[in-house]
Amino acid sequence: MVSVTVWNEFVHEREDEEVAEVYPDGIHAVLADFLADAGHDVRTATLDEDEHGLTEAVLGDTDVLLWWGHAAHDEVRDDVVDRVVERVHEGMGFVPLHSAHYSKPFKRLMGTSCSLKWREEGERERLWVVEPGHPVADGVGEAIELDRTEMYGERFDVPQPDALVFTSWFEGGEVFRSGCAYRRGAGRVFYFRPGHETYPIYRNEEIQRVIRNAVAWAAPGETVDVEFGNVDPRE
Amino acid sequence: MVSVTVWNEFVHEREDEEVAEVYPDGIHAVLADFLADAGHDVRTATLDEDEHGLTEAVLGDTDVLLWWGHAAHDEVRDDVVDRVVERVHEGMGFVPLHSAHYSKPFKRLMGTSCSLKWREEGERERLWVVEPGHPVADGVGEAIELDRTEMYGERFDVPQPDALVFTSWFEGGEVFRSGCAYRRGAGRVFYFRPGHETYPIYRNEEIQRVIRNAVAWAAPGETVDVEFGNVDPRE
Amino acid sequence: MVSVTVWNEFVHEREDEEVAEVYPDGIHAVLADFLADAGHDVRTATLDEDEHGLTEAVLGDTDVLLWWGHAAHDEVRDDVVDRVVERVHEGMGFVPLHSAHYSKPFKRLMGTSCSLKWREEGERERLWVVEPGHPVADGVGEAIELDRTEMYGERFDVPQPDALVFTSWFEGGEVFRSGCAYRRGAGRVFYFRPGHETYPIYRNEEIQRVIRNAVAWAAPGETVDVEFGNVDPRE
Amino acid sequence: MVSVTVWNEFVHEREDEEVAEVYPDGIHAVLADFLADAGHDVRTATLDEDEHGLTEAVLGDTDVLLWWGHAAHDEVRDDVVDRVVERVHEGMGFVPLHSAHYSKPFKRLMGTSCSLKWREEGERERLWVVEPGHPVADGVGEAIELDRTEMYGERFDVPQPDALVFTSWFEGGEVFRSGCAYRRGAGRVFYFRPGHETYPIYRNEEIQRVIRNAVAWAAPGETVDVEFGNVDPRE
Repeated sequence: MVSVTVWNEFVHEREDEEVAEVYPDGIHAVLADFLADAGHDVRTATLDEDEHGLTEAVLGDTDVLLWWGHAAHDEVRDDVVDRVVERVHEGMGFVPLHSAHYSKPFKRLMGTSCSLKWREEGERERLWVVEPGHPVADGVGEAIELDRTEMYGERFDVPQPDALVFTSWFEGGEVFRSGCAYRRGAGRVFYFRPGHETYPIYRNEEIQRVIRNAVAWAAPGETVDVEFGNVDPRE
Repeated sequence: MVSVTVWNEFVHEREDEEVAEVYPDGIHAVLADFLADAGHDVRTATLDEDEHGLTEAVLGDTDVLLWWGHAAHDEVRDDVVDRVVERVHEGMGFVPLHSAHYSKPFKRLMGTSCSLKWREEGERERLWVVEPGHPVADGVGEAIELDRTEMYGERFDVPQPDALVFTSWFEGGEVFRSGCAYRRGAGRVFYFRPGHETYPIYRNEEIQRVIRNAVAWAAPGETVDVEFGNVDPRE
Repeated sequence: MVSVTVWNEFVHEREDEEVAEVYPDGIHAVLADFLADAGHDVRTATLDEDEHGLTEAVLGDTDVLLWWGHAAHDEVRDDVVDRVVERVHEGMGFVPLHSAHYSKPFKRLMGTSCSLKWREEGERERLWVVEPGHPVADGVGEAIELDRTEMYGERFDVPQPDALVFTSWFEGGEVFRSGCAYRRGAGRVFYFRPGHETYPIYRNEEIQRVIRNAVAWAAPGETVDVEFGNVDPRE
Repeated sequence: MVSVTVWNEFVHEREDEEVAEVYPDGIHAVLADFLADAGHDVRTATLDEDEHGLTEAVLGDTDVLLWWGHAAHDEVRDDVVDRVVERVHEGMGFVPLHSAHYSKPFKRLMGTSCSLKWREEGERERLWVVEPGHPVADGVGEAIELDRTEMYGERFDVPQPDALVFTSWFEGGEVFRSGCAYRRGAGRVFYFRPGHETYPIYRNEEIQRVIRNAVAWAAPGETVDVEFGNVDPRE
């Protein structure tokens, strides 16, 4: 059992009827549900809560943080971002989804612009497993097919991942590194591309499987307690 | 529970009294014991057995294979090596220890000479954890100290590891990438340097912890079944 | 100026009229021409020559070896393969092209099956630059378009590249890691996917540019002379 | 010829007599001299200059930026840091030296704390080449010996480098990943550990050789001009 916090800016679902139909209780509710069904201890947090729901107490008790944001990246307070980044360095897992490529914590952890190409025309996407031996691909078939998605295309301006697990093909002619694993500090980060506010992608069972795998993979073990700074010689 | 096979050439222990005192039942027996204590299903296999104890049936039922060899690398039959390498490609974990850097299966999986510097003077070694967020370092302190070891020094002629977990310091002035993680095919490989036939290193509890971690990390999940060869278009 | 040897099995061009029309003097001749035009010192070698044209003298004088093979991989002598692999370990650059993913030297250097999906239907391919800061992508646009190619699709069973430079999109729905950079021993290896015996891909100027870049990148510098084996302490 | 800018906070040399004796014109002057001798076009810039000497014009004309800072990291203006980071993303090479592991631009590019262990007792350091095929190790021997250095020890809290070129051994018992290559955006970053304000390390010819190699390696080519944002389909 992993202690999971699902963070969602929770903006589209309350402002746009089309989104509300797909995710009436918010994207976070759907993510939380299937992770709870997998036996994890799950809470949610949203932008409009005090400290965005990410107090020191909540983060201190979080093993893996999922992040969904799109319209309100800039409204996330910098002190909360500092806290998230620091917790990742200490060992907390971090799983930014889809448009969270542009979230403050992900950009801070990557050190790059995290820019990409995009297009919203409901194209077909096929996520190919390029690293079948990686735990995040566990039990997934050779490829996951999504009938209608927003396109994200290369160049995706991120550091070379420690492991590239998925690469997407898009109907319109682009490719994308859709599943990228990193370690930052003592924490593990898995960026996973699929998701959208109007295509019901988080209800897809194969996508749910990958997210469950990512949570299991990103959960910290008994992390080494490192001493930094001025030290005495060992010899 | 992981199905583990511990392979040992089992030569030194029967030919050299000094070795026999440290490992009276063979190095494999000590490795098998602490892995069985960790709840794994463990068998052993040795060079003098039929097919070196690595029949198709045994390998087919092995999740993770540990390998110890030193004096008799050349006596390992090439058809058995083929079988081991193929099983790693299919997903079997492989954990070569110490002088197994020169074993046939490891060299085949690496594609390099796997050469290194060495010296046998009972020097002190200190294995520093350089990647504390990696599962193989789980629960290990900042460094493991070994009072008397054989030295292995860089340049260690292996491909850049997918993750470098440990780096050793040696009294005589060398360093060594002591814990190297790779994926090859669908299988995971963890080379771990410590070990020797006369220094009782596999009785060290911290070393045992790393080897237990390596077994857990290398164990295959539900590996993707990949179709190779001529295929029809998806579109 | 780099000393380049272009190796070609030179089978299709002599047995198949359609191929002979595209490459009347062999694929090696076209490759050699544009590399010579770039100012390099270029020789060619083919399967039917003595020692396949890859004598110790030739390899000893080669900075970068290009390799094209398809129909006759198995006819390449193992002792010549040993020699090629050893020279790569010593620092010689190696650039296997297209179907050379299944060549003996490449498979030996990778330690994996190097299998992939394929289909020969003259589909469109688009090679996206995923790592624009890599020297092999120098001066290339965002993507290279090829109207008619043989498809290669993932899973491509190779080790994770040290740098992934190109990823291909195919009309039929697949993706492929088309430009993969590795170091093996002191040598640099760049696998580049495009090429075919009947599509005139090596006459494409952008493809030529990438191959010229790969040769420049793979050329050895003043390689460190490493001492392996038993050594005295530095302290 | 590469257009190089050597940045130095230039604090110690003016406040501390001992430092002034080693580097009477500042550390930047010594770095600039040997790089100019190598045929590069070199300018220097320091903290007390207007915009720290790193105006848009200067950075726009810089291929590779070297950075030395120690006592005054916090005094570097954030808008100048933004500019440096953005230029790296566009393709400018960046070579932070020694205590610049804690400089603002390096920390921003890494996304981690960049913390480490340290000790100032004039210990012996030996930098082992672990990746002899990397251009930054070109022409360097197996190891560089430095008689008196400040110690930096692991855990060095940086992302896994794209290539690890040097690993240091220290008399007091530590190891350190001393030469780390990264790509960030289109730019190349090489962190190189040696250096100090009172040990005359930048007068050492082997250290100078590595820094010259790093400048050559980090210099941008004809970088791909990437289009980010909303795009039309290619198909």
